Amino acid sequence: MKIALAQLNYHTGNFEGQRKQMLAAVGDARAAGADLLVFAELAITGYPPRDFLEFDHFIAQSDGLVQELASHSIGMGIIVGAPLRNLTGKGKPLFNAAYLLHEGEIKQTVAKTLLPTYDVFDEYRYFEPAFGNTLVQFKGVMLALSICEDLWNVGHHARYVRDPLDEMQAQEADLIINIAASPFSREQQAERDYVLTEQVKRWKKPLIYVNHVGAQTELIFDGSSMAIDANGNKCLQLPAFAPSMGYVVWDGSGLKHEVQAAIKILEGEEAVHEALVLGIRDYFRKLGFNKAIIGLSGGVDSALVTVLAARALGAENVHTLLMPSRYSSDHSINDSQALVKKLGVSHSILSIEDAFVAMESTLAPFFEGRAPDLTEENLQSRIRGMLLMAHTNKFGYILLNTSNKSELAVGYGTLYGDMCGGLSVIGDLYKTEVYSLCRFINREEEVIPENILVKAPSAELRPNQTDQDSLPDYDVLDQLLYQYIEERKAPADLRAMGFEQALVDKVMRLVNMNEYKRHQTPPILRVSSKAFGMGRRMPIVARYLQ
Amino acid sequence: MKIALAQLNYHTGNFEGQRKQMLAAVGDARAAGADLLVFAELAITGYPPRDFLEFDHFIAQSDGLVQELASHSIGMGIIVGAPLRNLTGKGKPLFNAAYLLHEGEIKQTVAKTLLPTYDVFDEYRYFEPAFGNTLVQFKGVMLALSICEDLWNVGHHARYVRDPLDEMQAQEADLIINIAASPFSREQQAERDYVLTEQVKRWKKPLIYVNHVGAQTELIFDGSSMAIDANGNKCLQLPAFAPSMGYVVWDGSGLKHEVQAAIKILEGEEAVHEALVLGIRDYFRKLGFNKAIIGLSGGVDSALVTVLAARALGAENVHTLLMPSRYSSDHSINDSQALVKKLGVSHSILSIEDAFVAMESTLAPFFEGRAPDLTEENLQSRIRGMLLMAHTNKFGYILLNTSNKSELAVGYGTLYGDMCGGLSVIGDLYKTEVYSLCRFINREEEVIPENILVKAPSAELRPNQTDQDSLPDYDVLDQLLYQYIEERKAPADLRAMGFEQALVDKVMRLVNMNEYKRHQTPPILRVSSKAFGMGRRMPIVARYLQ
Repeated sequence: MKIALAQLNYHTGNFEGQRKQMLAAVGDARAAGADLLVFAELAITGYPPRDFLEFDHFIAQSDGLVQELASHSIGMGIIVGAPLRNLTGKGKPLFNAAYLLHEGEIKQTVAKTLLPTYDVFDEYRYFEPAFGNTLVQFKGVMLALSICEDLWNVGHHARYVRDPLDEMQAQEADLIINIAASPFSREQQAERDYVLTEQVKRWKKPLIYVNHVGAQTELIFDGSSMAIDANGNKCLQLPAFAPSMGYVVWDGSGLKHEVQAAIKILEGEEAVHEALVLGIRDYFRKLGFNKAIIGLSGGVDSALVTVLAARALGAENVHTLLMPSRYSSDHSINDSQALVKKLGVSHSILSIEDAFVAMESTLAPFFEGRAPDLTEENLQSRIRGMLLMAHTNKFGYILLNTSNKSELAVGYGTLYGDMCGGLSVIGDLYKTEVYSLCRFINREEEVIPENILVKAPSAELRPNQTDQDSLPDYDVLDQLLYQYIEERKAPADLRAMGFEQALVDKVMRLVNMNEYKRHQTPPILRVSSKAFGMGRRMPIVARYLQ
Repeated sequence: MKIALAQLNYHTGNFEGQRKQMLAAVGDARAAGADLLVFAELAITGYPPRDFLEFDHFIAQSDGLVQELASHSIGMGIIVGAPLRNLTGKGKPLFNAAYLLHEGEIKQTVAKTLLPTYDVFDEYRYFEPAFGNTLVQFKGVMLALSICEDLWNVGHHARYVRDPLDEMQAQEADLIINIAASPFSREQQAERDYVLTEQVKRWKKPLIYVNHVGAQTELIFDGSSMAIDANGNKCLQLPAFAPSMGYVVWDGSGLKHEVQAAIKILEGEEAVHEALVLGIRDYFRKLGFNKAIIGLSGGVDSALVTVLAARALGAENVHTLLMPSRYSSDHSINDSQALVKKLGVSHSILSIEDAFVAMESTLAPFFEGRAPDLTEENLQSRIRGMLLMAHTNKFGYILLNTSNKSELAVGYGTLYGDMCGGLSVIGDLYKTEVYSLCRFINREEEVIPENILVKAPSAELRPNQTDQDSLPDYDVLDQLLYQYIEERKAPADLRAMGFEQALVDKVMRLVNMNEYKRHQTPPILRVSSKAFGMGRRMPIVARYLQ
């Protein structure tokens, strides 16, 4: 039995888009002589559909596409993920299901048992859990069919009370098939390999895994679909960050791969780079936009975002604004000009001086006798935000935000100023990670001018300002932030790790009190295990922990 | 047995604040001769604690306060809600529990079975469900102790597979006690009365219900704690929107109320008015701020927000900016001045003309040959936002946002302009509801100048503009929005209800495509069953439903 793995880039709610891609995959699989074609979890709707799942006409469209796909299953089975209405009248109104389609019909459905409801996942918001997965027989082969999290209750991830695949079922199965919607993070590819390999070791059965690829706002799906034989060897590895079809053969006793070129597994900065490029590209493509605008400060954050945007959209689709003030250094312009020349993106230079003077004089009667402070710094940042937004309105750009995770964490940014934008590209990279990714980009050739990477970070909102006037060194700050945000360490733990008490208190206070700012930031491309945004839900009004 | 109901205003994570209030309630209950004192669900942490529940030191502080409260339970039992660590090693790491404290010890814990995970609720994100509630014996009285949602699986709310309170347990119980964290909405008080009365009718047992009061960012808890005797009659009703203690006596056969003044149940606009005032007051108080600033346009939205802010914070703590442009009508200033005089709030007048001219001239070289459009309208709105934010930075105000739900729904607002602010006060009121609330405020005396209520709504961003240049009449628009947003009706349903197809298509498209703007709005005080914000989670990048 030849089995096709379809790793496709879905678009939430775009049933017509899904239909076209899926029918093309059906054509490919047929041409390759496949007996069974496997799509990902909730492939029909795209993932995550979020509260669209609560709209009956959304489910009706999903049901319609499942039926249409069934009509294309004559002679070839299709496994596809879609919502399934819960007709029992009790529990949530839907199941998160895998459908087996064959000979024009829905032959069987299997519902997900373990519903991830943590971090970015809200599945119990919508779905009733099933009580254990069911075996599915197809052309005499017993398939243990499961959905994503159902296989994750293993090893150091084991935490659920129930395990969906019981001993008896597993022993009867020939093959384990898992359809998934598993987003990328720095750690996720390794964890996924670990989990799937553990399951193969545990049940001594081969496993086929089909994931989504492509970005849905914050979430970037890397794909990396695979097949593993009963000995734990990968016999198929589909690429990361690209749509792909792959084929394996079940010969009655084992899983054999088709001949394929070796797939390079992306790791570290290279994986993050590809993830962010895909994240930008899909955000624009799926919203129907193609041109980005970025404010270039001469610093490392905006330089990195510009490189990533040029790679995602093409240099011809990226415009930059250089917006010097009375406090801007010469190098802020020179370095930016060197960068735009190197990348081939367009740029305009607009001084913010006139607008700043006009704002100051409008406010002067009301601020009389008060010294310049953060107010005037924020004004400059907000004038820049306004000039960028005016360009988006006039020309149809999307503004890319250039805040990094360190800034977002401690609130070192201006709401409605440099925190503007439609999408935050590097909001899940700590400042030290921003430098690492720039170094990766420059590994063979100086794409980002060296001077941008070596000068001291500065907002340039007052004379001779640097970030380290207000913040500790990023090396220290980022480690502390990582331990608090990703690892959720207590203040006592942090002090025991060697961070100074005063620093711990200050940073934790800053992180918590700036929740109100992060509430109003653009969606952030997620590449870590704990990004700001939908996966980290903190109160705004709260007494902060010490 | 005399039972005290403590309806208090908690503050998420403010364990010291909780401690003080709770010990005062212990003192009051002792002085009144109570045998048992009942606090609300998760009273120890405040509700909702959100992802603070994932921090071990947060749980440690909660555990510490439970222990301290136990030390005050000599001679008087205390029932209090707090997280309980799940020590089984399987499932979520916590239970949402009710603790019975007595004679210095934790005598028993009962965990919540039904975990609301819909709309604004995320409880399965944190808590493992229990498998049915347990009876608790206290001084010879059998208490069926349950937590909020556990009692909601009844009547038209019945939807869970399991029911936590079974026939046998209920028959053994003398009294049902439910501790809750049930936020206000227009419909919630009636639904709550219905649900609790249904349970009393079903089990023929008296019921004691203790809820939170006070606002936690978006969520406003009305309190409205009560006791119902076995015949379904309310024998105690605590007030809405105010902390309160109440007492009932269980005499071995029935529940008797203490003598109390009749509590007026608030309904309709009066309830919404009290909710919003409390929402503003608690947002400021719990963040440690006391002064608000508001941009006054001369329109109904900003007038209403100013009235509510003056009532919540005191007129002396409210400052307003009147920011006319070349397109402003005379009445925009005159009407605003009449309002501020009536309310006794302060105001400043700042023309945006100079800043607008400076921005236009800065942009002129890049916009050459292009006609004025939405860009220039947004610029004006953003200059106003910037002037308001400059005042918040300089003087320590919080900016109150004045967007209404109709605008937010269709995207009729400027991101980083009139969408700025720390808190959206009326973002859950459709425009027609804004008028209704203004009429309620003016019911006895003209607080809001009549001219503000009768003139045509306008953003005044170009000559002779009115809202109805771009939008249908609010009477029609709001009905359509309600059917789509609150009732989740399909386009076909909406057409069947008599809305024109073109209007349905346009409005649904606007609602969906403006998700990116709503993603960046301030938190919105929730008064409806479906507010924008944490309770409505829609994708930004999606193909919109038609």
